[in-house]
Amino acid sequence: MKIIVIGGIAAGMSAVAKAQRLLPEATFIVYEKSNLVSFGACGLPYYVGGFFDDPAEMLARRKEDFEKKGVKVNTQHEVLSVNPNEKKLTVKNLVTGAVFTETYDRLMIATGAHPVMPPFNNHEGKENLFFLRTMTDGENIKKYLLQPDVKKVTIIGAGFIGLELVEAMKNRGKEVTVVQLDERVMPEIFDPEFSTIIQDEIVKEGVALHLSESVQGFIGEKKITTVVTNKGELATDLVIVSTGVRPNTAFLKDTGLNLAKNGAIIINHQGQTNLPAIYAAGDCATIPHLVTGEAVYSPLATVANKMGRIVGENLAGQEASFAGTLGTSGLKVLTMEAARTGLNLKEAQAAGFNAKEVLIKDKNQTSYYPDQQDLFIKLVYEATTKRILGGQIAGKKGAVLRIDVLAVAITKGMTTEELGFLDVVYAPPFARTWDALNIAGNVAK
Amino acid sequence: MKIIVIGGIAAGMSAVAKAQRLLPEATFIVYEKSNLVSFGACGLPYYVGGFFDDPAEMLARRKEDFEKKGVKVNTQHEVLSVNPNEKKLTVKNLVTGAVFTETYDRLMIATGAHPVMPPFNNHEGKENLFFLRTMTDGENIKKYLLQPDVKKVTIIGAGFIGLELVEAMKNRGKEVTVVQLDERVMPEIFDPEFSTIIQDEIVKEGVALHLSESVQGFIGEKKITTVVTNKGELATDLVIVSTGVRPNTAFLKDTGLNLAKNGAIIINHQGQTNLPAIYAAGDCATIPHLVTGEAVYSPLATVANKMGRIVGENLAGQEASFAGTLGTSGLKVLTMEAARTGLNLKEAQAAGFNAKEVLIKDKNQTSYYPDQQDLFIKLVYEATTKRILGGQIAGKKGAVLRIDVLAVAITKGMTTEELGFLDVVYAPPFARTWDALNIAGNVAK
Repeated sequence: MKIIVIGGIAAGMSAVAKAQRLLPEATFIVYEKSNLVSFGACGLPYYVGGFFDDPAEMLARRKEDFEKKGVKVNTQHEVLSVNPNEKKLTVKNLVTGAVFTETYDRLMIATGAHPVMPPFNNHEGKENLFFLRTMTDGENIKKYLLQPDVKKVTIIGAGFIGLELVEAMKNRGKEVTVVQLDERVMPEIFDPEFSTIIQDEIVKEGVALHLSESVQGFIGEKKITTVVTNKGELATDLVIVSTGVRPNTAFLKDTGLNLAKNGAIIINHQGQTNLPAIYAAGDCATIPHLVTGEAVYSPLATVANKMGRIVGENLAGQEASFAGTLGTSGLKVLTMEAARTGLNLKEAQAAGFNAKEVLIKDKNQTSYYPDQQDLFIKLVYEATTKRILGGQIAGKKGAVLRIDVLAVAITKGMTTEELGFLDVVYAPPFARTWDALNIAGNVAK
Repeated sequence: MKIIVIGGIAAGMSAVAKAQRLLPEATFIVYEKSNLVSFGACGLPYYVGGFFDDPAEMLARRKEDFEKKGVKVNTQHEVLSVNPNEKKLTVKNLVTGAVFTETYDRLMIATGAHPVMPPFNNHEGKENLFFLRTMTDGENIKKYLLQPDVKKVTIIGAGFIGLELVEAMKNRGKEVTVVQLDERVMPEIFDPEFSTIIQDEIVKEGVALHLSESVQGFIGEKKITTVVTNKGELATDLVIVSTGVRPNTAFLKDTGLNLAKNGAIIINHQGQTNLPAIYAAGDCATIPHLVTGEAVYSPLATVANKMGRIVGENLAGQEASFAGTLGTSGLKVLTMEAARTGLNLKEAQAAGFNAKEVLIKDKNQTSYYPDQQDLFIKLVYEATTKRILGGQIAGKKGAVLRIDVLAVAITKGMTTEELGFLDVVYAPPFARTWDALNIAGNVAK
C-alpha cells in the first residue's frame, strides 16, 4: 500500500501522522513545495509583530519525527500533474530541476492556498511589498520592519490576517493604515454591527482606517513610497497585501476532479473527492457545513487539522467522518475580541430556514469586580423550533471563549429556550448570575 | 388571587418579578426578615476585599421598583409558621414586635440559608469573629479590617466563600491563614487533583494553609487573639467562619413538607413541594439534578435565580419546568481559575453509570502569544456510549469559561468523540488549533 500526500502543512501532515499510526506497514511519501513541513501560518502576524522571535515555534511537528517513523518527506518538490486513471503523478525536484513520475494507491491533496495580488499598477519587483503567508514572507517582513526609517505601514485588506497585522504593527510602534475595498472590515465573517464594533476600536487606537477605498497602484521605483487609491494618495514605508487566498489547485485541471467556483476541491464528510482513492483537505478544499451540509470554502487551521486527521484514518482504510464545519472563528485586535460560529441570518435564510435573529448588549461579568466590559451577542435561530443556527459575540473580555458554547449548542440542536436556562458558570470575575448567553437565549425566546 | 413569597433575596424576588409581569391582577406580598431585598451575597468577598465601595452594587433590584408595580414588600418581617391546611401564616413584624396572621392562595418559600457556627469553645460575644453572609456582616468586617492593627486574618473553612476571601484579604494586604478540617480545599466541589492545583497556588502566594486541622476554640476576652486547633495555636486579629450553610427551614417543622436530610425543602422540576399550592426555590430547597434527576442541595445563585423565575411562572398559573442543575460553578483565587459541571466519577458511579474519567494537562493557547498557561481538564463519561457526564477545569487563564462548553455538552448528550472533533474557536491568543477541550475528548475516546 503506497500512500502519497501532496502538501506537508496542516491537513497533509495531520493525515500522515494519523494514517502512519494506524497502518505502519504502508509506504508514506509526502511532497511539499516549500522547505518545511507542519508550518502554522497563524503565528505569522505575531512573529512579525515581535511577540516572539524563534520561528520554530510555528512548527507543529518536525520533519525528522516523520522520517524516524519511515515517512519519506520530500520538501522542495512540486507536483506538476495528477493522472487519476493511471494513478500517477509528475513531480519536480525544485532543487535539482529533475522531473519524475510517481505512482500511488491512495492519494491525498493538501496543497493549501496562496494569496492573490489584485491588479494593482506598478506592483512588480518592489522590495517593500509583501504577502504574509509563508515563513519566508514572515522573515522578510520582520527584517524590513527593523530598519529604523520604516514607520508607516499600509495593510491592504481587512480580513483575519489584515486585522491581526494591525495589532502586530501597533505592537511594533508603527503608524498603521488599513485600506479596505468593502464598506466594512471582515464582511464575510461578521455582520455589520460587529464590523462596526471592531472598526470603532481600531480607529480609537489610532489606526487610519480607509473603508470603501480601492487601491489603484503604487508610486515608487524599487520601493513603494505612495499607495494610490480611488480617493487619494497615502505615504508609506511598507505595504502588506492581505486580500484573501485562492486554493492551490491549478495543477489539477483536466484531472476530472470536481472543483468549486474558486477552484477548491469538493470533498464529502469523509474527505473523499469525486475520484476513487483521491482525498483532499485543508485550504485547497471545500468542507461540508455542519448545519446545511453544503460544501463551503472555509480556509481555517482548525478544520484543516480535523479533516486532515479524518482523511488520515480513511487513507489507512478506516471509515471516519467529520460532522462538518461551523466556520467557528475568532480574533483579537488590540483590546477587542470577536468571534462567530454557524450561520448568519442571510446564510440561514439562503439555506431555506425560516430564521430570525436577536442582538443583545450585556456585560461580561459583575460590575463590582475589576474590568467589567460590554458584551454583544447575536443569535440566529429557527423561528418555529427556536433551534440555534448561528451566533456572533464581541467585547473586550470573555467574548471569544463564549462562542464555543454556541458551537456545541448548534452541533447538538439546542434551542434558545434551553440556552436561556442553561446551567452555565457564575462567579463575579467571569459572569453575572444570568450569563449574557442566558440573556440572549431568553430574549430570543 | 393572593400570592405570598417568604424571603426576598434571589429566588423569591426573581419569582415575584416574573409572576407579577404575567399576572399583574394578582395580589403579591413579600415577607423578608432582613432590611433589604434582591441582595447578591456573592459580591461580599469583593466588597470586604476593597474591590468596590458602594454596597448598593450588590442589590440586583430595588424595593421601590417592586412597590411601584404594586407588590407589597415587607422587610424586617419574619414568618414564624405555616399552616398548609388553612393556607395561613403567622408573621412577626420585627420592628414593632407585632404578630399577625396572613392568608395565601399560592405560597413560595425562599428563605435561603444561614451559616453554621461549629461547636468552637469561647466563640460567643467576640467582636472580631464574623460570618460573611449578610450585608451587615460585610459592613462589619469591612469596618473592622480598616483598623490599622488588624493584620492577621484567619479564615475557617475552605469552600467558595473561604477561598474568595483569600483573594479579598490578600488584596487588603493582610497575612492570611486558612484552617480547613478536611484534608483538602473544596472537597465537595473538586476532585483531589483540582484541590491540589488550587492549594499549590495559594500557598505559593504566601497563604498559610492548614489542612486536616480542626479548630477547637478561641483565646481572648472581647477579642479573639488566638485560634486553638488540634495541632497548635494561631495568633490572629480577625476570624471569619465559612464552614458552610444550612437551609432556613426550622419554622416549617410540623407542616408536612418533605425535607431532605439537611432540612432543605424537596421540590420537583416545577419548583413544587409535596403540598398543594406551596412552591420553594433557592438555598432553602433542593434542586433536581439534570443528569440523575435526584434532589440535590446546591446553594448557588444561578440555580436560585433560574428556579425562582420558573416558580414565578407557575405561581402565575403557567406550566414551566427547569431542566435541572449541573452544579456548574467556578471560582478565581488570586491567579488561579477552577470550575466544574455535572457529575464527578464517584457521583456518576453512585448514580449507576458505568463511568470512566480522563485527566489531561494541556495549554490554554499558543506558545508564542503572551501568557500561555497550563490547563487541566477532567472529563467524566459513560464507558459504553461515551456520553459526557461531567467535567472539571483549572488553570490560570481560560479555565472557567471553558466549563460552559461542557455544561452544554452534558445537557445535550454530547459524546467524547463529538467533543474531540467539535468545531471550537481557534485564534493564537485564545486557543490552540486543537483546543484543550478537543484533546480531552480525543483522549477519552
